[in-house]
Amino acid sequence: MRYGCTALNEVSFLNMDYTRKICVLTQEDLVRAGCFDVGFAIEACENALMQYADGRVIFPDKVAVVFDEVSQNRINCLPAGLKESMVYGMKWVSVFPGNPRNYGLPNLSAVLLLSELNTGFPIAFMEGTMCSNLRTAAVGAVAAKYLSREDTQVIGFIGAGEQAKSHFLSLMHVRPDIKVCKVASRTEQTEAEFIRAMSRFYPSVEFISCKGCYEEAAKNAQIIVTAISGQERLLQAQWITEGALYLHVGGLEDDYAVPRKASKIVCDDWSVVKHRTQTISRMYKEGLLFDRDIYGDLYEIVSGRKQGRENDREFIYFNSVGLSYVDVMLANCMYRRAKEKGLGSYVNMQQSSMFDVDICDVVL
Amino acid sequence: MRYGCTALNEVSFLNMDYTRKICVLTQEDLVRAGCFDVGFAIEACENALMQYADGRVIFPDKVAVVFDEVSQNRINCLPAGLKESMVYGMKWVSVFPGNPRNYGLPNLSAVLLLSELNTGFPIAFMEGTMCSNLRTAAVGAVAAKYLSREDTQVIGFIGAGEQAKSHFLSLMHVRPDIKVCKVASRTEQTEAEFIRAMSRFYPSVEFISCKGCYEEAAKNAQIIVTAISGQERLLQAQWITEGALYLHVGGLEDDYAVPRKASKIVCDDWSVVKHRTQTISRMYKEGLLFDRDIYGDLYEIVSGRKQGRENDREFIYFNSVGLSYVDVMLANCMYRRAKEKGLGSYVNMQQSSMFDVDICDVVL
Repeated sequence: MRYGCTALNEVSFLNMDYTRKICVLTQEDLVRAGCFDVGFAIEACENALMQYADGRVIFPDKVAVVFDEVSQNRINCLPAGLKESMVYGMKWVSVFPGNPRNYGLPNLSAVLLLSELNTGFPIAFMEGTMCSNLRTAAVGAVAAKYLSREDTQVIGFIGAGEQAKSHFLSLMHVRPDIKVCKVASRTEQTEAEFIRAMSRFYPSVEFISCKGCYEEAAKNAQIIVTAISGQERLLQAQWITEGALYLHVGGLEDDYAVPRKASKIVCDDWSVVKHRTQTISRMYKEGLLFDRDIYGDLYEIVSGRKQGRENDREFIYFNSVGLSYVDVMLANCMYRRAKEKGLGSYVNMQQSSMFDVDICDVVL
Repeated sequence: MRYGCTALNEVSFLNMDYTRKICVLTQEDLVRAGCFDVGFAIEACENALMQYADGRVIFPDKVAVVFDEVSQNRINCLPAGLKESMVYGMKWVSVFPGNPRNYGLPNLSAVLLLSELNTGFPIAFMEGTMCSNLRTAAVGAVAAKYLSREDTQVIGFIGAGEQAKSHFLSLMHVRPDIKVCKVASRTEQTEAEFIRAMSRFYPSVEFISCKGCYEEAAKNAQIIVTAISGQERLLQAQWITEGALYLHVGGLEDDYAVPRKASKIVCDDWSVVKHRTQTISRMYKEGLLFDRDIYGDLYEIVSGRKQGRENDREFIYFNSVGLSYVDVMLANCMYRRAKEKGLGSYVNMQQSSMFDVDICDVVL
């Protein structure tokens, strides 16, 4: 029976279904589901850029908190949504640079949360470092697809960590004719480890350990990748071959003369990049580089609004800082693939209204 | 062996420990751990307000996304941190008003994520609706502790849903002499359900079903609570007794004459409230209420910077919109209690570097 006092429609909140299952996916679940799939990540990334170009992406500001200026310990909360896929999610990523030294632990952690947009309920909670790694490299690979020479045969890496490895695998996917991979890093072990891990996947590629000589890694390479954790101007303009594509992955990694040499500077999102601490962001803040110096954003090239590479002589500079909607797109694809294969654990977060619990369990 | 090219210190990223366990806590885990504990929630809330007063809280802006202006479907991402507890977390809460009608599902869902600030790693992923409910009511109870008459005997509810129930339990904790509880709601069932559920906990309280008459619920009550999901000016100023405390929980629930009648208007955080759609927020935007009309924020009263109730005749108006750092404080207390009791499931989100996986599992 409804009382006559108000005009609101009656909705029964009694006998409501409170059960809510969330799929929890570990890295190992994702790997078993076949989500360590380079082509799939590249496709998801390109699809996300197309959706962004069409205005079908929800891309609010991130919440970045630096806990301590000295350590630069930080946690970023990066929400994003995809209207077509009816999903809204978030990447929660911590960067604590002292972890390896202080605890023998990775400096980075990431988890992902996805909610579906019919009911608003969370559907998946996932390990996020693999997704994040594959996404970063996939953006680099999409850039290489449109901006590198099709006949690329030599690739050079400055830095040999996880990002360098992910980039190598993704770049091999779009430029399968690569025959030589040169790598220069801070230590013999890290170069050797890169080569050990990568030659498992591509035994026919010739890997060259540059023994810490960055010039050796960069020269004659049609694609150069810098992916270091420090902030140093390692890459020099005179080392760069005509027709090269340079993928700038980290913060400050190259001399200011490098972007100055470029025929085109392309970003994942210049409006985001300009406020960060990348090489070109610093130049922008120092008045050495202007909006007009940026050729465009990757989504403009993927969607055909702007030309990619126009000849074999251009030196193209690509800078990315990460786009959370690409993470959410890839995470959603991973979740769906895992679900199809019956992988992951389902946790019933709630079984009933909290007021239906046993009274003995309540402390008044 | 380290190469001489750079000045960076060497850190071995090899043989690093990648394992990361997260505690997953369902509502039932939390209930079994004794976290449905009204006094514990009130204490956590008061502690959080004290920490805020002392500048020990990290309180960034929330990310609020409304997906559709008509449905008002929304997901809010509310990050906050506690420096002393070395924890930073987030509440992820969805409000989809059409859920009950469209799917027979609750309009609200919430999950919580906590990270610890030594390594930055996530430590807990938790069901969040119980925490959120207890927190809202605990803030109301802290307000009642400082702002209601100590001899409160009669309490009146307009609205009989989960928020009304949580408020009743929390208010009984701080004002245990309450003898009469009147409740008015839209339907006979919801009033009866409120009384059925609450009399289990407090069989000696006299519960009065007001049969949809809001005036009956409000009159002679020393504490009046409005907690409705609609947006209607239900509470009228002439129904309010001298010396009452009014707890305004929802959006628009009272006539503009109600705040005008108040001796003191107190908020959880006026700087947040003023930008929302609560009764006093609307009056502020319409130029009918000014900053000077707000007596203060609850933390100022809890920390002793401002007086609470000063006599038995004041009518005090309390308005809250929710403070995410209180959620994070309560969630962290709940997580610790569950951990002590060995409850919750531990999920190893990652076992090794993604590049150490079996090569057969990788798709190139």
